[in-house]
Amino acid sequence: MSYEQYKSYFRSAIDGMSGYTPGEQPKVMNLIKLNTNENPYPPSPEVLKVLKEYDAERLRLYPDPLCDKLRDVIAETYGCERENVIAGNGSDDILTIIFRSFTDSQHPVACLEPTYSLYPVLAGIQGCNVNKIQFNEDFSLPDDLLEKAASSNLLIITRPNAPTGNTFPLADIRRICAEFDGIVLIDEAYADFSDDNCLELAFEFNNVIVSRTVSKSYSLAGLRLGFAFACRELIEGMMKVKDSYSVDALTQAIGAAAIADQQYLQQTSTKIRASRQVLSDELRKIGFDIVESQANFIFAAPPHGEGEKIFKFLRGENIIVRYFPGEITGKYIRITVGNDEQNKALLEALHRFYS
Amino acid sequence: MSYEQYKSYFRSAIDGMSGYTPGEQPKVMNLIKLNTNENPYPPSPEVLKVLKEYDAERLRLYPDPLCDKLRDVIAETYGCERENVIAGNGSDDILTIIFRSFTDSQHPVACLEPTYSLYPVLAGIQGCNVNKIQFNEDFSLPDDLLEKAASSNLLIITRPNAPTGNTFPLADIRRICAEFDGIVLIDEAYADFSDDNCLELAFEFNNVIVSRTVSKSYSLAGLRLGFAFACRELIEGMMKVKDSYSVDALTQAIGAAAIADQQYLQQTSTKIRASRQVLSDELRKIGFDIVESQANFIFAAPPHGEGEKIFKFLRGENIIVRYFPGEITGKYIRITVGNDEQNKALLEALHRFYS
Repeated sequence: MSYEQYKSYFRSAIDGMSGYTPGEQPKVMNLIKLNTNENPYPPSPEVLKVLKEYDAERLRLYPDPLCDKLRDVIAETYGCERENVIAGNGSDDILTIIFRSFTDSQHPVACLEPTYSLYPVLAGIQGCNVNKIQFNEDFSLPDDLLEKAASSNLLIITRPNAPTGNTFPLADIRRICAEFDGIVLIDEAYADFSDDNCLELAFEFNNVIVSRTVSKSYSLAGLRLGFAFACRELIEGMMKVKDSYSVDALTQAIGAAAIADQQYLQQTSTKIRASRQVLSDELRKIGFDIVESQANFIFAAPPHGEGEKIFKFLRGENIIVRYFPGEITGKYIRITVGNDEQNKALLEALHRFYS
Repeated sequence: MSYEQYKSYFRSAIDGMSGYTPGEQPKVMNLIKLNTNENPYPPSPEVLKVLKEYDAERLRLYPDPLCDKLRDVIAETYGCERENVIAGNGSDDILTIIFRSFTDSQHPVACLEPTYSLYPVLAGIQGCNVNKIQFNEDFSLPDDLLEKAASSNLLIITRPNAPTGNTFPLADIRRICAEFDGIVLIDEAYADFSDDNCLELAFEFNNVIVSRTVSKSYSLAGLRLGFAFACRELIEGMMKVKDSYSVDALTQAIGAAAIADQQYLQQTSTKIRASRQVLSDELRKIGFDIVESQANFIFAAPPHGEGEKIFKFLRGENIIVRYFPGEITGKYIRITVGNDEQNKALLEALHRFYS
């Protein structure tokens, strides 16, 4: 194929941006993959059952655009009405819907820093300014958060936060929801690994959205299903922006089966929380500075803040963790809590390095 | 749950729009569903094989964000390089990516009228103007199309067109691609039911995108997989806008298996094209005015242009077709070509009405 000289017709915002960099999804085997906060345990056995029993012929028909059966399962599990739930193609899709609903060049977004690196990318695509509010040095919320966020139409609080893993007092979040003049999105991708969550705030305030995902606690990152809770009016508006058929038929069926199996969720989450405690303690013994985690990963600063050095050392040992360059984040590595075998291999490698 | 008084924080564009209305997906059984252009035949047997053999545990990992294996299958099947292919969550997702890449309040879109009703909805969300260019009375392209589209950054040509089902001379499309100063999207959702297609134009011009879907010809509307072809630079730019993990792991595996089975695609498409001919002939005998179709549906005006009346009559007979109100479209009904049994039931009902 030979084309004439290329002329770009992209919007300048797109030409000028570099896109989101997802964590490495290595295609080689025998790596210990602790870099993208996947669950080390398989999904609920109910998932396999749906897969084996699914009537492939049904795939010739469009899925339910409203995801009613799935939303009913979510509503029943989480204690609300179907009208309080929206489902999307992963919680990244939910985020996209929210950015397209509430932000543009006249309506900026506010988020904390450091946090999930997708937010500024979505802002770039949408052409809205990002009001980045620095955490305190210990990654707690700054006292003047509301003043700093005041000009924004959307405030995102990630709780537990990524990549730091810490959480914030529920009472503080409630006060922010009550006082912020705009939408508060509480991104709870990691809430199932936490002592508490903010779900009740979505049912208490009509400017609050709480989002969840099946990618982490439900072991279904490969499926792409996110959901969010809010008052009926917010859900109705977001449904206009949502692509009608964004959640495919298999995902609706598998997602409903996985979410209905809360017992399995509790079992695996409890195991991961116990492993998180052990891993945190062992890393501290080696000399790591640990951010107290309420998620399925640990943000850990190696001795002397040599984040990049340890990241590279572990890569050489076939262990992948995540490294975020930057003045503050660069001192750390982010380690997904794995299964016992993976955690042991990680600790053994680190012991070799520091012995 | 009791909320305080609701205040909208939605962008005014969202508050002011009504959202896309998808064709009815009835939840009752025993209906003859000829309203959303689904394929009456099941997907390739390879799809069932993938479903039965899929290792559910793999779903705990994120999918390949680049969809490389799937794109390789598409590239090999359609005769291009992986770098010329983008995959998305249905061709509606591909359309969204294209609108977000090339349109905004300063960059309008042009499309023909009547055509796929999602385009103006996507324009509304993106806040771009829509330059609607009327077809000639026989739904052929107007001679002054290029002059009328001149101020737009994106021109969409749906070929075969929906809901009319007709096509346009390839030579005319080539000339439009050569002369239009902007992106030409050729939406080929129905191309597999057509005598020819425009794929070669995506490899000839660096301002041309050709999009496809597995929803119609591959009998996989429930799966959500769309793909598009273009020069490397266009694909690279659109990849920045695409949600990293928009195509789930199962969809990548099932989609690749279905697309690789071209023999099955040819078999079912050939059957549908033969049924289309029979159905068109029979409808003409009853007195319908038929637009010559190159798609898997027939745009047919009942005697006296009583589109709505016949739509409602058929609904009462448990046969759903699609009706688009409007001065021109309101004279017609759009009938998806079904299997022999469905087509027979439709014709019998119409014979009863007109006898």
